[in-house]
Amino acid sequence: MPIDPLRTLEELKELRALTGDEHGAQRVAFTPVWARARAWLREKLAELPVEVHQDPAGNLWATLRGERDDALLIGGHMDSVPNGGWLDGCLNVLAGLEVMRRAAQEGTPPVTLRLVDWADEEGARFGRSLLGSSAASGTLDLESVRGLRDRDGVTLPEALASQGIDFERLPEAHAELRAARAYLELHIEQGPVLEDLDLPLGAVLGTFGVERHTITWRGQAAHSGSTPMNRRRDALLAAGKMAQEVYALTDRHGGVSTIGSAKTRPGIVTSVVEECEITLDLRHLDLATLTAMWEDARAAARRFADEGGVTVEFGDLWRIDPMPFHPELIELCDEAIREVCGVSHRLPSGPLHDAAEVARAGVPTVMLFVQSLRGISHNRIEDTKEEHLVLSVLALDRLATSATRWITDRLAAPQAR
Amino acid sequence: MPIDPLRTLEELKELRALTGDEHGAQRVAFTPVWARARAWLREKLAELPVEVHQDPAGNLWATLRGERDDALLIGGHMDSVPNGGWLDGCLNVLAGLEVMRRAAQEGTPPVTLRLVDWADEEGARFGRSLLGSSAASGTLDLESVRGLRDRDGVTLPEALASQGIDFERLPEAHAELRAARAYLELHIEQGPVLEDLDLPLGAVLGTFGVERHTITWRGQAAHSGSTPMNRRRDALLAAGKMAQEVYALTDRHGGVSTIGSAKTRPGIVTSVVEECEITLDLRHLDLATLTAMWEDARAAARRFADEGGVTVEFGDLWRIDPMPFHPELIELCDEAIREVCGVSHRLPSGPLHDAAEVARAGVPTVMLFVQSLRGISHNRIEDTKEEHLVLSVLALDRLATSATRWITDRLAAPQAR
Repeated sequence: MPIDPLRTLEELKELRALTGDEHGAQRVAFTPVWARARAWLREKLAELPVEVHQDPAGNLWATLRGERDDALLIGGHMDSVPNGGWLDGCLNVLAGLEVMRRAAQEGTPPVTLRLVDWADEEGARFGRSLLGSSAASGTLDLESVRGLRDRDGVTLPEALASQGIDFERLPEAHAELRAARAYLELHIEQGPVLEDLDLPLGAVLGTFGVERHTITWRGQAAHSGSTPMNRRRDALLAAGKMAQEVYALTDRHGGVSTIGSAKTRPGIVTSVVEECEITLDLRHLDLATLTAMWEDARAAARRFADEGGVTVEFGDLWRIDPMPFHPELIELCDEAIREVCGVSHRLPSGPLHDAAEVARAGVPTVMLFVQSLRGISHNRIEDTKEEHLVLSVLALDRLATSATRWITDRLAAPQAR
Repeated sequence: MPIDPLRTLEELKELRALTGDEHGAQRVAFTPVWARARAWLREKLAELPVEVHQDPAGNLWATLRGERDDALLIGGHMDSVPNGGWLDGCLNVLAGLEVMRRAAQEGTPPVTLRLVDWADEEGARFGRSLLGSSAASGTLDLESVRGLRDRDGVTLPEALASQGIDFERLPEAHAELRAARAYLELHIEQGPVLEDLDLPLGAVLGTFGVERHTITWRGQAAHSGSTPMNRRRDALLAAGKMAQEVYALTDRHGGVSTIGSAKTRPGIVTSVVEECEITLDLRHLDLATLTAMWEDARAAARRFADEGGVTVEFGDLWRIDPMPFHPELIELCDEAIREVCGVSHRLPSGPLHDAAEVARAGVPTVMLFVQSLRGISHNRIEDTKEEHLVLSVLALDRLATSATRWITDRLAAPQAR
């Protein structure tokens, strides 16, 4: 039997029993439960003709030597958030494990095949996600994370040291990507798009870039009884217009736009709102469009301020560029999906993934999404139909095969590299 | 000289020096500073042929006996908020004092003239305003205020007892209104209307009724990156529409409408807003219109809920009926204003006043507003031009004279009572 997706299902359940409780998965990175998950994974890998090692950033690599050093990578993460779901991250690893088994059974592959379990994808303990993959991609700025502390006051360098990882050497993980020619990652969608379309699988176009800001309007507190409407400088009125504007914005540009919170001051029933602060989160797959969205949002915020006689001020919270995946690999992913379930769909990823970090390092990358029920993740009720999980393992395997061929074809035609 | 408004100015400044500090007026009801203000007022009254007594609710009455027991009342309040202004409440009393002086000089008036200093108009210590006047009007529900405590845990009955006032006997103050045939009150506007119109004085049509409620929309928290716009159930979107709707509402109905606060849950940058609660304060002079405003607001809130696939729930905070003043007294007030400054203006009162309580007891009532600079009150920068204060004393005096005649005319034509 070339590949056994039902074994993946069994192993997912085995892992759930080993590392979950009634509240969900508890594989928080650098904890004993996470270490138990990794030890269990190493036992599985020990049955295969692969070399296993941990890199200086704590990422676990299993390497099946091929005819060439040039490598196809398949990645995922065994770590979870506290009270997490049974699929987020580990589906990717265990499906990759099954692909390794199939390849090993067939003998020496034409290119080297590597499975990676990224360290601390979730950032649940220190608030910094994608730690292991950003160390490998070379985007991790040590100074920006050196001072991070968990709830007990333990610093990130101290926590890493207790796992035998030297904080100062994290960037050395970059060497692992030297021979990487393509990177594949399967993940649950964590959104409602595929479920809405009644499709099991989708090819991911890339991860959204994010512009995250505060907008604060300031007017004048005034007595709600004695201040005529035409004399008001009402900060909430401007914010209210913005709540609608973000929908118009995405009608024009695509992407998504969210006002996640609104705070009013003085915030009492007998006063016009003097100050209203909102948080705005804009996401798009195209950098120029994302930039235009933020420009449009600021212009609208200023217009609403002018209309209401209030002032407006902008603050920066965070930003990251979009990371489009490789067009030819997206095409191959689409083909693999159509081969196993007849129909595919292309969609962007709103959440970030390790794949974005690998792509940022210049490795051709694509992701495969499998339908999430109710779009829910990071929760014990996170779920996906078992028949869809089976299809996802089959599709990842087909994609690994076609990506291997794509790598060898490219290597044979060096001008295309 | 029949009346001396400059003396009122001097007395206002004398009172400010006696009971204010660099932060403003400190005449909080039932405190030593307030008692000092009252003692000072009693000294002024002692120079006049008036009977002075405190009623069972702590209201201070000065009575100039006339040819009949039927009485014209002029009222105000010596108490202030902490760090209050120099005019709010005491202008009313001191202008009334000057009217009493003029009347006393002229001999026995045709009707009895009474000046009242209401106790605890502001409610600054126990959060219950209009305490003395509501006891007199008969609208005070003892059970609803019996448990009120100040910041130090002192109950209202205890605080009253320390001033020699028996909580249980508060309603006996109602007897004071038995012979009242009209009630007049001068007050600073505490709003920007007269300043906008560049007018010193205005006749008050009545006090707004108030409908005060919470509106809570509930949708679904969802990841800001992975949830397409058309799949969102965004509670903030409905609230944002409401922020604009309150302006449309008052365009149609008049009155004022205020959303004073908005609270969002979970209120984080990475999630669509699941729950948004606002407070809504509607005010109008006409009861039927006020009722229609609240009906319209609810209908709009439900429409916005339907449009966004969210639910809506309403909560009651407080309500009070509008209290229109007496049409004939409003006419007399307008005339008095025109006599002293050529032009008048009629306007409603957004804030409540003791006058509303007296009117609620069935006593024909009117108020006279004098311009407030920048619409600011309850603050040490509260101010009114001195020339406007002079005009206000003159207008109150003219109004007292015409109201006296109005009372005697009415008594002569009993069918009109």
